[in-house]
Amino acid sequence: MITSEQEKIKITLPDGSKRELPKGSTGLDLAMQISEGLARNVLAAKVNGEIWDATRPITQDATVQLLTWNDAEGKGTFWHSSAHLMAEALEALYPGIKFGIGPAIENGYYYDVDFGDRTFSQEDFKAIEDKMLELARQKNEYVRKPVSKSDAIAYFEDKGDNYKLDLLKKLPDGNITFYSQGNFVDLCRGPHIPNTGFIKAVKLMNVAGAYWLGDVNSKQLTRIYGITFPKQKDLTDYLTLLEEAKKRDHRKLGKELELFAFSEKVGAGLPLWLPKGTMLRERLEQFLRKAQVKAGYSPVVTPHIGSKQLYVTSGHWEKYGKDSFQPIHTPDVDEEFLLKPMNCPHHCEIYKTKPRSYKDLPLRLAEFGTVYRYEQSGELHGLTRVRGFTQDDAHIFCRPDQVKEEFIKVIDLVLYVFKALGFDNYTTQISLRHQTERSKYIGDEAQWEQAEKDIIEAAGQRDLKTVIEYGEAAFYGPKLDFMVKDALGRKWQLGTIQVDYQLPNRFELEYTGADNQKHRPVMIHRAPFGSLERFVAVLIEHCAGNFPLWLSPEQIAVLPISEKYADYAQKVYTSLEEKDIRGFIDNRDEKIGRKIRDAEVSKVPFMLIVGEKEQEEGKVSVRKHGQGDLGSLSLEEFSDFFTKEVNQNMVS
Amino acid sequence: MITSEQEKIKITLPDGSKRELPKGSTGLDLAMQISEGLARNVLAAKVNGEIWDATRPITQDATVQLLTWNDAEGKGTFWHSSAHLMAEALEALYPGIKFGIGPAIENGYYYDVDFGDRTFSQEDFKAIEDKMLELARQKNEYVRKPVSKSDAIAYFEDKGDNYKLDLLKKLPDGNITFYSQGNFVDLCRGPHIPNTGFIKAVKLMNVAGAYWLGDVNSKQLTRIYGITFPKQKDLTDYLTLLEEAKKRDHRKLGKELELFAFSEKVGAGLPLWLPKGTMLRERLEQFLRKAQVKAGYSPVVTPHIGSKQLYVTSGHWEKYGKDSFQPIHTPDVDEEFLLKPMNCPHHCEIYKTKPRSYKDLPLRLAEFGTVYRYEQSGELHGLTRVRGFTQDDAHIFCRPDQVKEEFIKVIDLVLYVFKALGFDNYTTQISLRHQTERSKYIGDEAQWEQAEKDIIEAAGQRDLKTVIEYGEAAFYGPKLDFMVKDALGRKWQLGTIQVDYQLPNRFELEYTGADNQKHRPVMIHRAPFGSLERFVAVLIEHCAGNFPLWLSPEQIAVLPISEKYADYAQKVYTSLEEKDIRGFIDNRDEKIGRKIRDAEVSKVPFMLIVGEKEQEEGKVSVRKHGQGDLGSLSLEEFSDFFTKEVNQNMVS
Repeated sequence: MITSEQEKIKITLPDGSKRELPKGSTGLDLAMQISEGLARNVLAAKVNGEIWDATRPITQDATVQLLTWNDAEGKGTFWHSSAHLMAEALEALYPGIKFGIGPAIENGYYYDVDFGDRTFSQEDFKAIEDKMLELARQKNEYVRKPVSKSDAIAYFEDKGDNYKLDLLKKLPDGNITFYSQGNFVDLCRGPHIPNTGFIKAVKLMNVAGAYWLGDVNSKQLTRIYGITFPKQKDLTDYLTLLEEAKKRDHRKLGKELELFAFSEKVGAGLPLWLPKGTMLRERLEQFLRKAQVKAGYSPVVTPHIGSKQLYVTSGHWEKYGKDSFQPIHTPDVDEEFLLKPMNCPHHCEIYKTKPRSYKDLPLRLAEFGTVYRYEQSGELHGLTRVRGFTQDDAHIFCRPDQVKEEFIKVIDLVLYVFKALGFDNYTTQISLRHQTERSKYIGDEAQWEQAEKDIIEAAGQRDLKTVIEYGEAAFYGPKLDFMVKDALGRKWQLGTIQVDYQLPNRFELEYTGADNQKHRPVMIHRAPFGSLERFVAVLIEHCAGNFPLWLSPEQIAVLPISEKYADYAQKVYTSLEEKDIRGFIDNRDEKIGRKIRDAEVSKVPFMLIVGEKEQEEGKVSVRKHGQGDLGSLSLEEFSDFFTKEVNQNMVS
Repeated sequence: MITSEQEKIKITLPDGSKRELPKGSTGLDLAMQISEGLARNVLAAKVNGEIWDATRPITQDATVQLLTWNDAEGKGTFWHSSAHLMAEALEALYPGIKFGIGPAIENGYYYDVDFGDRTFSQEDFKAIEDKMLELARQKNEYVRKPVSKSDAIAYFEDKGDNYKLDLLKKLPDGNITFYSQGNFVDLCRGPHIPNTGFIKAVKLMNVAGAYWLGDVNSKQLTRIYGITFPKQKDLTDYLTLLEEAKKRDHRKLGKELELFAFSEKVGAGLPLWLPKGTMLRERLEQFLRKAQVKAGYSPVVTPHIGSKQLYVTSGHWEKYGKDSFQPIHTPDVDEEFLLKPMNCPHHCEIYKTKPRSYKDLPLRLAEFGTVYRYEQSGELHGLTRVRGFTQDDAHIFCRPDQVKEEFIKVIDLVLYVFKALGFDNYTTQISLRHQTERSKYIGDEAQWEQAEKDIIEAAGQRDLKTVIEYGEAAFYGPKLDFMVKDALGRKWQLGTIQVDYQLPNRFELEYTGADNQKHRPVMIHRAPFGSLERFVAVLIEHCAGNFPLWLSPEQIAVLPISEKYADYAQKVYTSLEEKDIRGFIDNRDEKIGRKIRDAEVSKVPFMLIVGEKEQEEGKVSVRKHGQGDLGSLSLEEFSDFFTKEVNQNMVS
C-alpha cells in the first residue's frame, strides 16, 4: 500500500539506523526492504511503542521495531490470532455458539465459549485442531476494520451474541475495531499476524469452566486452552518440555523424595519440612551462612511477630495491612501484634540498639528470617507460592559512598551461590527511575543519581549480562534482580539487591560522620536465594531431584545382598558415617534387584552393594545413580573417590 | 508439757523409726529426746503432713518430721515469725499504725503496713532493724491462742485495725487463732518458731507500694521486705551472694556484652538477638543438633502458625485458648490461625504424612521450634520469662516397649549437654501419678504402670540423684525433670522428659505392629535446654558471662600497641581466622592499657598484644582474661595452646 504521491516518511529502527519509506508503508514493507527472509517472519510491528498489525499503514515518521517469533510480543500476537482461528474453527463446527473473550496467555491462548446446550470435552479437540489447520492452510488475511459503536452493536445483536454486546457497552465510541479472517468476524483491538498461514502447528491443551467476566453470579462458559507454533518441530519440542517439566514438578518430586508435605490441619501454604527436606534446607543454610560470615555479615535472630506500631512506623501497615494476616490481639490489656511479613523493621530496631559511627559501617545484619504473607488459597502453588517462607535475608546499613562497593560484594556472593548450585545460566535486570516522571520517588536526587550509576558500574565491573529497565525501580530505591534459566530453559527470578532510602528515614536511623554530624545511612536489602522455599523448588526442578552430591539428603545406600551380610553392611555404613558421609542401610527382606531399583527411584547418588565377595575382600561394589556399576572398591578407595566427587561440584 | 496420766503416744519419724512419748508431748520434746543439739535448732514440726509450732502438744499417734533451718518449710516458718517480729518493732516505733498481711516469701518475708499520714523510706530501716534485734534478744515466746470470731472482732475493733477486720470477715468461726510475742498480737494461722531468740541477724531489703488485697481500688499500703537468719554469717553470705547475683544478672550482662536487646516497638518479651548473642545461640544449636543427629534424631522444620483446627484437635484451644495470643484472621474468606504455643501438634501431622510400621519406630523428630506464649507484661523477666522462645524440642514416637530405652538415651543426651556446658551439679525429679487418686489420668493402666517403672529404672541405671514425687505427673503421662545448681548455688529447672498418652489418641496416630494390627504409639516430649532463651540466661548467670571457650562469641582480641602494627595485627588475625578462631582487632587510636581494660570488660578469653618485638619475632604476647600475662608465643604455639584449651572444656 503505497500512496500515489510517493510522499516519504522517516523510520527509525531499534539500532538507531534510519530508513526512508513512502508514506503509508507497512511494517511488512519495511521488512521487505531489509530482507525477504525477515518479511516472511514478521508477525507484527511496534510503532512508536505500540504494537500494530504488520499490514497497517504508517503515515508519519516513527520508530519501528519488527516483531517475530523471537520476541515475546511477537509470540503474543501469534497466539492472539490463533485464538481467532480457533473461534473460526469452532463456529464452523458448532454453528450458533457464542463467544466471550479470547486472549493470548503466557503459553498459548484461550477462548471462552458458550456452547448452549451442547456438551464439550477433550474428545472434541482433534476435530477442532484439524479444522484449524485446514483454515490455516487457506492463508486467510486478518483484516482490521474500524467500526462505529452502533454498527458494532447492530452486528452482534443480529448474531445474538450477548457477551460481545456486554463488552461493547463498556467501550467508548470512535475507537472500536473489528478483525476478520475467513468467515469469522470478532470485536477486537488487535493487532494480528498478517494471515492464518503462519500457523503451522496446533494443539488444544485443556478445557475448564470460567465465569463470564470472572463473576460467580454470571454464566459459566467453557474455556478452551490451546497453543500454536510456526513450525511443527516447535510443538514437538514444547510437548517434550511439558512432559519433562511434569516429571520434574517439585510438588511431585517433593512427595516422592519425602522432602516436604502439606497438612490440611496445619493449613494451606504452610509447608512441613520432612527429615530429608530439612537436611537439604539446613545444608543450604549452612552453606550460605558460612559464605556470609566470611563476607562480613553478622547473623541475628528476631521474633516472628512485632507490635503493630513497628509496622505503622515502617509503613507496611498502611500499605498492606488490610490484605494481610490480621493483627493478633492479647487477652486482658489488648495489645496488637502482627505476624512479620518482612525482617527489615526488626533489623532497623537492632541498628538502633546503640549509637553508630561512620567507622562502624557497613553493618551487615543477616537472618534466615521466616516471614508470613497472606495469599488467597487459590493462588498457592507447592513451595513457589506459600504463606510462610524463610528469606535468606540481610540488610546492609552503609554510607552513601559505600553503595557501589557493597553492590559488588553482594553480586559476588550471589554468583558464588549460583555457581555452587549449578545455575550457570543467568541474566540480570537493573530497575531505575522513570526517565522523566520522577515525582513519586522519595530520597535525595543526588543520592539516587549516584546509586543508579553505582549499580550500573557494579554490574559492569562483574560483566553481568543485564538489561536496564527505566521506571521499574521501587519508589524507595533502585534495584538489581537475578533471573536464572533452569535445565529446561525456564526463567526464574531468584536473588535481588535493592537500595532503600525510605526505611532509614521512617526509623530515623543515624550515624555520626567523620564531621561529627548526624547522617542518615542507606539500607540495602538483599537475598541471594530469594527464599529457601522458592529456591528449593527451583533447584528440584532444575536438577530433577538429582541434587549436587554435597546437598543430597542421602548420599549413599548400603545394600546387603541378604540378611547374612547385615553386620558387614553396618560396619561399612558406620565407617563411612564417621567420615561425614550420610545415607542408610537397606535391611529389608527384599531381593537385591528390588533394593537397587528402589534406591534408583529415591535418586540416591551411590549404592554400595555388599555380599560374600565384598565381605571377604573388605570391599563394596559401587553403583552410581543413573550410570550403573563402577566396580569394586575398598572403603578407603570409595571414600577418597567420594570426596573428589563432592569437591568437583562444590566450590570451596 | 507432759500430761499427768503419762499416757503414751507413738511417733513415727521420717526414716520409719518409731518412738514412744507421753501424750501431749511437743515437737521440741521429741527433739530433746533425740539430742540437745537438735532441740536447739528445731523451728517447727510437721505433724501428719501439717506444719505445727514445735511447742504445740501432740495428743495422738502421729508421723512427725522435725523442721530446722535446713528445710524449706523450716525457713518459711522462721521468716513468718520474723514478719511478726518486724510488726512488733514497727508498732513500738510507730504507735497506731495498722497492719495488712505479712507472709514468708521465697527469700525472707514482707509485711504490708498502713502508716497513716506518716512517710516511710529506706532511711527508717536501721532503726527498725535495731529494734527487731533488741526484741529478739528478749527471747519472747510465740504463743498460740484459739479465739472465737466475736472475741477476735472485738479485739481488732478496739484496736481500730480495719484490715484485720476485713480478713476476719472471711474466716469461719471455730478455726481462728491469735499469735502473740512480747507486746504484739496478730490474727494468724501460724505456725511459728518457739521464740524470737532464734533470730540473730536482720536485714530490711526493700520498700514498695501494694494495694490492699491486690485491688487497685483499695488503699495503697507500704510493703516492707526483710530477711532474717539464725546466724550473722548467714546474712553476710546472703548479701555477698546477692551482690554477686546482681553482677551476674543476665539482663545486665546481656546488655554489656551486647548479646540481646529488647525494643518497645517490637514488643515486650520478644528478644532481639544481637550478633554476639546469635553467635552464642547458633553455637549451642549446632552443638545440640550434632549430638542429636548422632543419637538418631531427624531434624524437621514446621511453620510458626497453625490452623485453629490443629489446636482444637490437640486440646490446646479448649484448655489455653482464651488466655493466649488470640487467633489470626485472614481477609476475604475468614480462616483462623494461631501462633504456635508448642511444636507437638505439627510433629504429629508429620508423623501422619505416611503409614508407619513397628520397624520405623522410634521416630525421633527434632526441631529448634520458636513458640509464642502470652505472658502478662508484668511477669516478663529478661530471657527467663519471655513471650517468644525457641525450644530445643523433639518428639519421640515409639512403641510402649521402647519407653525405657528411649528414656535412657535421652538422659544420656541431657547429661552430655550439662557436662559440655559446665553444669556439674544437678538433681532430678520423677513425677508419677497420685498414689491413690487416679481418676484424672488418661491412658492405659498397664502402660502407666510400665512407664513409671521404666522411668524409675532408667534413672537408676544412670545413677541419677533423684526424688520421686507422687501426684506430680501431668494427666497425660509421667515425667522426669532436671534441675541444675549454678555457680551461686541457685537451682534452675532446665531439661525435661515427658511421656504422653494423650496426643497420640487425639491425633489418632497409628503404626502397624508385627502382628499386622494397628497400634497406638507412645509420644515422648523432651528438651535438654528447655529453651535456648532460658538456657542462655542461666548459662550467663552461671559463668558470669565468661563462657566456655568454644562458645565464646569473641575468642580473641588482637591488640596492636599502635597504628604502626596494624598490618601485622591483621596478618595475625587472618592466620588465626583460617583456623576457625574468631574475634576482632582493636584498631582504635587508644593506649594499649585502655585496650586491655576494655577487652577484660568484654570478657574476651584471650588478648594477643602485638608491638615491635612481637612483629620482629613473628609472635604474639598472650594475656588470658582474669589471669594476665601468659608470655610470648608464636602463632603456631598459640593456636596449639588454644586448641588444647577448647578441647579441655568441650566434650568431644
